Amino acid sequence: MKIEKLVGERFKEKPSDCVIDSHALMLRGGYMKNVANGIYSSFMPLRRITKKIENIIREEMDAIDGQEVQFPVVMPASLWEESGRYSSIGSELLRFTDRNDAPMVLGMTHEEAAVQLVRDYANSYTKYPFMIYQIQTKFRDEARPRGGLIRVREFTMKDAYSFHTSQEDLERYYDICYKAYERIFARAGIPEVITVASDSGMMGGSVSHEYMLLSPVGEDTIAVCSECDYRANMEAAQSIIENDASGESKELELVYTPNIHTIEDICEFLKTPLEESCKAVVYQKNMTDEYVIVFIRGDLDVNETKLTNCLGEDVHPAVITDDCGLYAGFIGPYNIDREKFTVLFDKSLENTHNLSCGANQPEHHYTGLKISRDIGEVEYIDLAKIKEGGICPKCGKHSITISRGIEVGNIFQLGTKYTKSMGMQYLDREGNLQYPIMGCYGIGVGRLAASVCEAHHDDYGPIWPMSIAPWHVQICCIRSDDAECKGIADSLYEKMMADRMEVIYDDRNIRPGAMFSDADLLGVPVRVIVSPRNLKEGVCEIVTRDKTVNMTVEVDKVIETVKGMIEERLK
Amino acid sequence: MKIEKLVGERFKEKPSDCVIDSHALMLRGGYMKNVANGIYSSFMPLRRITKKIENIIREEMDAIDGQEVQFPVVMPASLWEESGRYSSIGSELLRFTDRNDAPMVLGMTHEEAAVQLVRDYANSYTKYPFMIYQIQTKFRDEARPRGGLIRVREFTMKDAYSFHTSQEDLERYYDICYKAYERIFARAGIPEVITVASDSGMMGGSVSHEYMLLSPVGEDTIAVCSECDYRANMEAAQSIIENDASGESKELELVYTPNIHTIEDICEFLKTPLEESCKAVVYQKNMTDEYVIVFIRGDLDVNETKLTNCLGEDVHPAVITDDCGLYAGFIGPYNIDREKFTVLFDKSLENTHNLSCGANQPEHHYTGLKISRDIGEVEYIDLAKIKEGGICPKCGKHSITISRGIEVGNIFQLGTKYTKSMGMQYLDREGNLQYPIMGCYGIGVGRLAASVCEAHHDDYGPIWPMSIAPWHVQICCIRSDDAECKGIADSLYEKMMADRMEVIYDDRNIRPGAMFSDADLLGVPVRVIVSPRNLKEGVCEIVTRDKTVNMTVEVDKVIETVKGMIEERLK
Repeated sequence: MKIEKLVGERFKEKPSDCVIDSHALMLRGGYMKNVANGIYSSFMPLRRITKKIENIIREEMDAIDGQEVQFPVVMPASLWEESGRYSSIGSELLRFTDRNDAPMVLGMTHEEAAVQLVRDYANSYTKYPFMIYQIQTKFRDEARPRGGLIRVREFTMKDAYSFHTSQEDLERYYDICYKAYERIFARAGIPEVITVASDSGMMGGSVSHEYMLLSPVGEDTIAVCSECDYRANMEAAQSIIENDASGESKELELVYTPNIHTIEDICEFLKTPLEESCKAVVYQKNMTDEYVIVFIRGDLDVNETKLTNCLGEDVHPAVITDDCGLYAGFIGPYNIDREKFTVLFDKSLENTHNLSCGANQPEHHYTGLKISRDIGEVEYIDLAKIKEGGICPKCGKHSITISRGIEVGNIFQLGTKYTKSMGMQYLDREGNLQYPIMGCYGIGVGRLAASVCEAHHDDYGPIWPMSIAPWHVQICCIRSDDAECKGIADSLYEKMMADRMEVIYDDRNIRPGAMFSDADLLGVPVRVIVSPRNLKEGVCEIVTRDKTVNMTVEVDKVIETVKGMIEERLK
Repeated sequence: MKIEKLVGERFKEKPSDCVIDSHALMLRGGYMKNVANGIYSSFMPLRRITKKIENIIREEMDAIDGQEVQFPVVMPASLWEESGRYSSIGSELLRFTDRNDAPMVLGMTHEEAAVQLVRDYANSYTKYPFMIYQIQTKFRDEARPRGGLIRVREFTMKDAYSFHTSQEDLERYYDICYKAYERIFARAGIPEVITVASDSGMMGGSVSHEYMLLSPVGEDTIAVCSECDYRANMEAAQSIIENDASGESKELELVYTPNIHTIEDICEFLKTPLEESCKAVVYQKNMTDEYVIVFIRGDLDVNETKLTNCLGEDVHPAVITDDCGLYAGFIGPYNIDREKFTVLFDKSLENTHNLSCGANQPEHHYTGLKISRDIGEVEYIDLAKIKEGGICPKCGKHSITISRGIEVGNIFQLGTKYTKSMGMQYLDREGNLQYPIMGCYGIGVGRLAASVCEAHHDDYGPIWPMSIAPWHVQICCIRSDDAECKGIADSLYEKMMADRMEVIYDDRNIRPGAMFSDADLLGVPVRVIVSPRNLKEGVCEIVTRDKTVNMTVEVDKVIETVKGMIEERLK
């Protein structure tokens, strides 16, 4: 391939709407172009990268007995009604009707399609276990696409589904897949990816893990223990709070607190720490607008995922109206109408006393609240976000650090959610009907490409690992108007092409600076520079994009040297 | 791969809704499963076949300097409004709105996306020519999906778009692509595919060709000359009619024709041949319901594609109401209101006389019509379907035969339809702004797989060519309960796996008949049968699915022999 013929623009200026580097570099390097909000077309360099990623994934999925299949992008709504997700998933599931007014959806995940494909076939225990996977376009109507390929609406995904006759067998296979995923990310050039326990969310099931590339631009927040191997998505991380209620318990006392509306203000007014307050956080259920009041220790925040899982339905921050019976800024657990509102207590309030809290009347708070004494026995539920410096749920030390990460893959133990709802059964060895147990395993191809770029780039462009680089080697002919220089560069190119090497050749008559800028943006790992100055000594320069190699090599040793470098890096 | 673990059912009974063999065999063989009308999921054997077809296409597209890119499945309607196709294409273009009520479409073809991707880049003549292609899911909301993968709603397609600065350059590249297509079909196992001149339809442009697999189950009708190399889609085939008006021209005469409504009836009543009649065929324009009356020689039919192209808009067969001014069964060209109706004359009426025709009043016809004398000069337009035995537009002989075919690919010279409407321009060598000239080139991957099956199958299953077969060789262990037999079959399988051969192994303890039925349905080209009877002589049986080879080979020569057979067939 000659760069002169490569379709796509490369440019210097960072596009103003790019907030993360991989997005900016992939636009600047002619990798992709925006078509609509969260929808991109790929130019050849990106398509070559994603094809290589797809092939790595294929090899690893085939190696663990995966069978590649293909599900449709467009599915009938009836399939999603079977599982119940047609109504339970929000507007990220794109719904429409076809020409005959039949309701359809665009696949954002394919559990339903997987069950539909195999439920007639897998009617006997002898057919199990098995795993099917596809690499296919998906559409998820994200409210806020962002960060280029990090969060898009249309994307290519590998999604795999395994079917088992026992939880043990699922766990056995889950572990195999867990390791295959580690190999995939290592081969794609980001072995530093970590796994975190995660919340299963809309997928159903219990145990699940996310593969995270730690990165300040990630959208996920991860709790990592600095003392042990505990790692969890913020959404799933258990919050452990140790309270000490051993001192004197004061009496409940009504205090006049004019113009004080926040928990920070009341603590400052009372000169008590935030830990000695009980904050109210109010939501409304999406379906009914019913109010949900979460009481939580003043220094902590509510984890909305935990709240949603606890309620079994989606909520949104409340709009507190004049006639709703709540006084914004003065809501507290004492004398709250627990018939009218759903009232929940976070675990952080267990074993506390001497708390300040709202008094459920304007301009007043209480001090000296002791829940067990003043309210009675309540159920404490873990609804809080884990904090930096918080207690590790595994080793018990105050060693939690909070990082940000990009989710590059996930694996779920789904259980029987889909097989039960969709009526998939098999006869076991004893002749009884059973529901198979499922696992599912996803990797977003484009997001993985962007993540590798995020992890491996400099100011000038991506630094692609050999395994997924669009080309392995780039030849730069510094003076194409010099006959000898052009002749030698041409001959290197032709020999590499004849050897079926993945080579891109820049023989444009442009300034070296512009040529190298383009090469940096393409991020090809090995670069061969043919210049009249070096040819005087009978050598070419070989440098690597990651700057670890910079050497001169005799002209007739160039190809052999480059081949060796490629092989070494593909190992 | 062991067949025991292959996900998918194989069965004997032909599904009742299958009208063509490839559809029935691909369901019976566990290749695919219906998800919704015209929407299928693929099991592993079909996915392996389509991947091989995709790779053949990729290699041939790359060999003619194609650059693989990827366009989105979901596109903003605004892109299709730019080209004008958002309103001009009917309900096969699936339109919907996203969560923000933005109008979107599902891509059924990607001319708009191709222009969008390159219009900023290709701003100078130096960037031309180039070709970009993708292999991607498409959706076309067909009114009548049929024949399994032959006409579906969701499908995978390779679509390529080339851009040029002159018609000559487009023609040069069109010819290169024409030949690449011939190689693709030959490599996929159907070298018998023919090219036919076709109508460009909604694609715009002028010259276009379809690649047709002649097959009685095809949905396209093709005119083929038995005397020369003329071949055209019925929709595009010029109809040539030679009339002889040399005899006596009779006078126009009004005839009372009670209860006669069809042109056949009037000719029988008058005892004149159909060729001496002028038939009226009435349509209405889709947009306005305005009547369009086509007069044509009584023995011919109107080609609606030609009519649509002539009018520049879509039509439907007319509903003739009592007050519309037309008398059904008695419509004729004499005294017809040419202000009120669009009236067209087919070329078959040129140079005629003594015609019978409707009289535009109930129960009456005319005889003795001579258009030039009785109506005056009219424009004759080619609107007729070519007939079996008709005149070849190329060699002029009465040598046209009508065949049916499956369209497996098409190539179009698009001209500037899209670049003009979408404002894509470049500066030519003289510094003037020009519109690039486009070509586009499509192949449906699934339809090609089904077409190969249609061309190469017997009653028992598909006979896949080696190039796209799901596996190259199948081992059948006839007695897996016989230790020696199982041992030798196992060892052949393991050696083939170690050699990375594409092998599927049937070691189930089932009847040989059931085993061979399954093997026939999988259609694997080479079969190795390991049986106790043959092992007594120290041999295995090697047969091919196409029945051209049936031999015994010493056990330790089996792998070498099979390898040779595979290599020979992959050449």
